[in-house]
Amino acid sequence: MNIYDIAQIANVSIATVSRVVNNSPKVSEKTRKKVLDIIETYGYTPNVFAQGLGLNTMHTIGILVPTIADLYISRAVACLEESLHEMGYDIILGCSGYAAKQKEIHIEMMLSKRIDALILVGSTYAGSDDETHNTSYISKAAEEIPVFLINGLIEGKNIYCNAAEDYRASYEVTTELIKRGRKRIVFLFDSRSYSANQKKSGYEHALLDAGIEFVPELEIFMKNDIDTVRSIFCNYDYLDYDAVFATDDAMAIGAMKYLKAIGKNIPEDVSIVGYNNSMFCKCTSPELSSVDNKVELVASQTVKSLKTVLGKEGNVLHKNMVACELVRRATI
Amino acid sequence: MNIYDIAQIANVSIATVSRVVNNSPKVSEKTRKKVLDIIETYGYTPNVFAQGLGLNTMHTIGILVPTIADLYISRAVACLEESLHEMGYDIILGCSGYAAKQKEIHIEMMLSKRIDALILVGSTYAGSDDETHNTSYISKAAEEIPVFLINGLIEGKNIYCNAAEDYRASYEVTTELIKRGRKRIVFLFDSRSYSANQKKSGYEHALLDAGIEFVPELEIFMKNDIDTVRSIFCNYDYLDYDAVFATDDAMAIGAMKYLKAIGKNIPEDVSIVGYNNSMFCKCTSPELSSVDNKVELVASQTVKSLKTVLGKEGNVLHKNMVACELVRRATI
Repeated sequence: MNIYDIAQIANVSIATVSRVVNNSPKVSEKTRKKVLDIIETYGYTPNVFAQGLGLNTMHTIGILVPTIADLYISRAVACLEESLHEMGYDIILGCSGYAAKQKEIHIEMMLSKRIDALILVGSTYAGSDDETHNTSYISKAAEEIPVFLINGLIEGKNIYCNAAEDYRASYEVTTELIKRGRKRIVFLFDSRSYSANQKKSGYEHALLDAGIEFVPELEIFMKNDIDTVRSIFCNYDYLDYDAVFATDDAMAIGAMKYLKAIGKNIPEDVSIVGYNNSMFCKCTSPELSSVDNKVELVASQTVKSLKTVLGKEGNVLHKNMVACELVRRATI
Repeated sequence: MNIYDIAQIANVSIATVSRVVNNSPKVSEKTRKKVLDIIETYGYTPNVFAQGLGLNTMHTIGILVPTIADLYISRAVACLEESLHEMGYDIILGCSGYAAKQKEIHIEMMLSKRIDALILVGSTYAGSDDETHNTSYISKAAEEIPVFLINGLIEGKNIYCNAAEDYRASYEVTTELIKRGRKRIVFLFDSRSYSANQKKSGYEHALLDAGIEFVPELEIFMKNDIDTVRSIFCNYDYLDYDAVFATDDAMAIGAMKYLKAIGKNIPEDVSIVGYNNSMFCKCTSPELSSVDNKVELVASQTVKSLKTVLGKEGNVLHKNMVACELVRRATI
């Protein structure tokens, strides 16, 4: 039984039930009594919703993302919103960009609202090599409300992390490429975030464990944009390589376009693997093999953690990891 | 001068300025006075922000979308959030899906919050052929707060519509295809929303005006999904056509994949044009020509209307149209 059922039984709108629960003055005493009676009669006391009857909760969750125009992030938020809405929560959405100062400002703004918890989507919030000390504002936020990270890992009280096993996925993809005879694997990355570092580390360790020489210039840092990748590959035309592994599908596609344009056969001459298993993978020919980092699963696990923490229903692991899966299409 | 400047000058956090402006009890009298003094000294009274000092506003805008995992919609929301955040507004985000009942429930929920305005993103909110009378709940919402539609058109007081000129764009694309010698143009559509109907109408009128026979079976309604399109085209293999025009890029790409698989040359044998000018267009080979329906421009125009309406700064057109542009790549 949820808020919709209550509304139906009481023959009032959802808005009215919500007003009653939130003690809004806009409801007549008669209606208020009717709704509260039904809530009591039907024993309707799910943890989260019940809190609002007495405690000082706004049924509101803050979700902060660097940008909602990113495919991975918008998929995560779609999934979060669906579950949280079912649980009777509103979503306050903020888009902070990637700069540390702006992230801090956005989190401060969110804290000034009465939110019950904060969800940070994207490993950019877990800090990066360049700014090792810039996650203290997250720990500070966690002193006020529970903070949930998607694809990031920060130690600290009241911080709960759900992430894909990027290290392992990257290690396994690299190992598979090596087993298929590839020895000079280009690694493309666009960020020094927590998850990008995990991927890079998995790639490097797989080479090491297979006894393949690590060639620094095969690790290329670049902007995640199809056209940029093509122009960068033109500049690196002296490089010798037989595979490309990118931390995002768009970079893999940029590489594929360049390679096809110079007459290479995919995957005979060069194998290509992307990351995120986005809708892009099916647009290319051949279709792109890509790591599915299970964004929906990570998001739903986050909601599960949140429900347990806010409902005080038990202990929640500080860190929950989800296994990735390589989706093999035609480029490997 | 904005809220950040005030915070810097007062040497307090943004959250504190926000608390002062929102009359939160969590601020000491001393700090409250300091912040208000600075606000007064620097003559800081932009309309929107100033309202919060006295009036009963929450600086909160409700944004309702069918799903945030759609590329067009997430781009619109990214743009809306950026501008609204700069103006000091919070965003409450709701994802209603496409069913009329759920849309109505979500709007009711939003109204029960203290939002200053409601933005509906996507022409699904403008109703469709199948459910002609299902927009009354939007007119009802507009009795409480201003409602802004992106890519939809509903008549009514306190409703403001910003949309792309889809009829004209579709008419022009069809006309261009005809001028290039195409006579049997398949039209793919996935919705009977306001904007889909505009596109369909533009296509039909262009055929009519050019004296080209309208062939009903060339108008194909289908699910907007790359793989679905391919299987549907297999079923229609008796159809004779020399161009495909789709109301979304994904359908155009599905058609392209099918046509390439059966050995057709694009665009020599069949021209293809998509819609939305999404990131998908650059993933395909050849790259997809597509109608740019200027999502960022429509979103920023919506914010402009909203600012004028909430600030009571003048009259706002009920309907603002933005011209589209055909981006010619390699499939036309």
